[in-house]
Amino acid sequence: MPEVAGAGAVRILLTGGTGYIGRHVAEACLDCGWEVHLLTRPASILPPALDGRVGRHDHQPTFESLNAVLRAVRPECVAHLASAPAGARDPEQVQQTIETNVTLPTLLLEAMAANGIGRFVNTGTFWQHYRGEAFCPVDLYAAAKQAFQDVVRHYAVNRGLVAITLKLFDTYGPDDPRRKIVTLLVDAARKGGDLGMSGGEQILDLTHVADVGRAFVQAIALALAAPGGHEASYFVSGERMSLKELARIVTAAVGQHFAPRFGALAYREREIMVPIDPGTDRLPGWAPKHRVGDMIATLLPGGPAVA
Amino acid sequence: MPEVAGAGAVRILLTGGTGYIGRHVAEACLDCGWEVHLLTRPASILPPALDGRVGRHDHQPTFESLNAVLRAVRPECVAHLASAPAGARDPEQVQQTIETNVTLPTLLLEAMAANGIGRFVNTGTFWQHYRGEAFCPVDLYAAAKQAFQDVVRHYAVNRGLVAITLKLFDTYGPDDPRRKIVTLLVDAARKGGDLGMSGGEQILDLTHVADVGRAFVQAIALALAAPGGHEASYFVSGERMSLKELARIVTAAVGQHFAPRFGALAYREREIMVPIDPGTDRLPGWAPKHRVGDMIATLLPGGPAVA
Repeated sequence: MPEVAGAGAVRILLTGGTGYIGRHVAEACLDCGWEVHLLTRPASILPPALDGRVGRHDHQPTFESLNAVLRAVRPECVAHLASAPAGARDPEQVQQTIETNVTLPTLLLEAMAANGIGRFVNTGTFWQHYRGEAFCPVDLYAAAKQAFQDVVRHYAVNRGLVAITLKLFDTYGPDDPRRKIVTLLVDAARKGGDLGMSGGEQILDLTHVADVGRAFVQAIALALAAPGGHEASYFVSGERMSLKELARIVTAAVGQHFAPRFGALAYREREIMVPIDPGTDRLPGWAPKHRVGDMIATLLPGGPAVA
Repeated sequence: MPEVAGAGAVRILLTGGTGYIGRHVAEACLDCGWEVHLLTRPASILPPALDGRVGRHDHQPTFESLNAVLRAVRPECVAHLASAPAGARDPEQVQQTIETNVTLPTLLLEAMAANGIGRFVNTGTFWQHYRGEAFCPVDLYAAAKQAFQDVVRHYAVNRGLVAITLKLFDTYGPDDPRRKIVTLLVDAARKGGDLGMSGGEQILDLTHVADVGRAFVQAIALALAAPGGHEASYFVSGERMSLKELARIVTAAVGQHFAPRFGALAYREREIMVPIDPGTDRLPGWAPKHRVGDMIATLLPGGPAVA
């Protein structure tokens, strides 16, 4: 746990805290002894694991509503994990993608400025870096994430905001409702039989959700310690392996007869074959603790809990 | 006038066509023999100079509404000049700044994609480049302009859009309601007397609105000729001089007793002292025709018309 002066009094406000990653970030903050508040939509359901341990603050997507929450909570730092889902292709979803990923967090930054709250941790994605480029979006979701970082720059340069953006790669963990690749493979291996897949040569960058929680704690600690106007962006990069190698690890751990048929399906359009190299832009003071090979058992029903 | 194959049939849809610059862009397009349509808000007033010469299409800020207009008009190219005003500081204006400068044009691009319309000219500002940096916004307006360019990148990379962004510096012209620096100085010089001003050492980059109209015509011609997925950003850079030098030119042209008191006022917060150097990013095939010194007479009541 990073050392923060007067850690017992640190008050954090999270957006997206009822989502899968957000819930683990909330738990990691609680593990630090921090006071955790969630900025929630009225329709969101509080995860049972957080019940009674966090403050809940419903809001409407307006400046006035966000301003009222911030004035009441007065957090030392806001961590923004809410986002509209990636991969939306329907024209009707375009407005929601921009409003959730750009308009709402901009109103949040303005309300923070109005209340003198100057520490912000933001969430980005490796999908902003198709073909490893400085900026090349995989889809509109990734473009919206980049667009909001431009707004963050304004508040950093002109309003003194401290802002740290964490760019996530693929994540996994127990009871993951998101139907992501590790969960899909574990479920398929438990059932046995065969499964048609793409070529399997794409490289994945995998981080366990508990390590993601610790990454946000570290970013919040860095934001609390930074001078006004400081802005940085870091990759939260875990373990890299091909999809084929991941399938081999899962099959070995689950121990069932399971035969992925690689090449049965085409690669996705704009499949990322090699995620961007984080280079020197890794989150300082953080390294993943969990390796996929060790964690598969914890993803099975009745498996051991994560240490 | 740039040569465009089958120029008589070219159909252009403009946003912001009822504004000061948009109106001059519409006139420049009409001068090319192009068919001009304006995408308008119901409350907008059509400039008398365009009455009967352009199609008017009121819209709501939704995908469905924009989709209906594009399906009906089927323009070869859309030029986007609508924007929320720069310099807004009120928290209540933040939502409008994002919705007008990011959400609405994103819905427009999605509606273009849905209708197979793949040529787009966008409007940016030198305020995206405070201190001459690759991106450093003067204010939220400039950040929103940059944010929308990230969205444009998505449609160029992933949907085959041809997109050219023109970044404007300061502009001026006759009957300008925008209270910009050239107009303010001409009005002050006509009244005579003295006027408290800032130090006057800031460098201005001034382009006459008729030259801006020709710049958009050139950008539309380039967009019509470019292969799918082409994306570019160009500066529309005119004549550079200090505010002191501009005041001297205006005073000489108006011929009244007028004494600007330089240094009486502080520079603005985040005043741009030297606009970004366009370097090699000037709009190809375009150069300004009008010089400020020659144009002052046309800005006076009853002055000659612009050739």
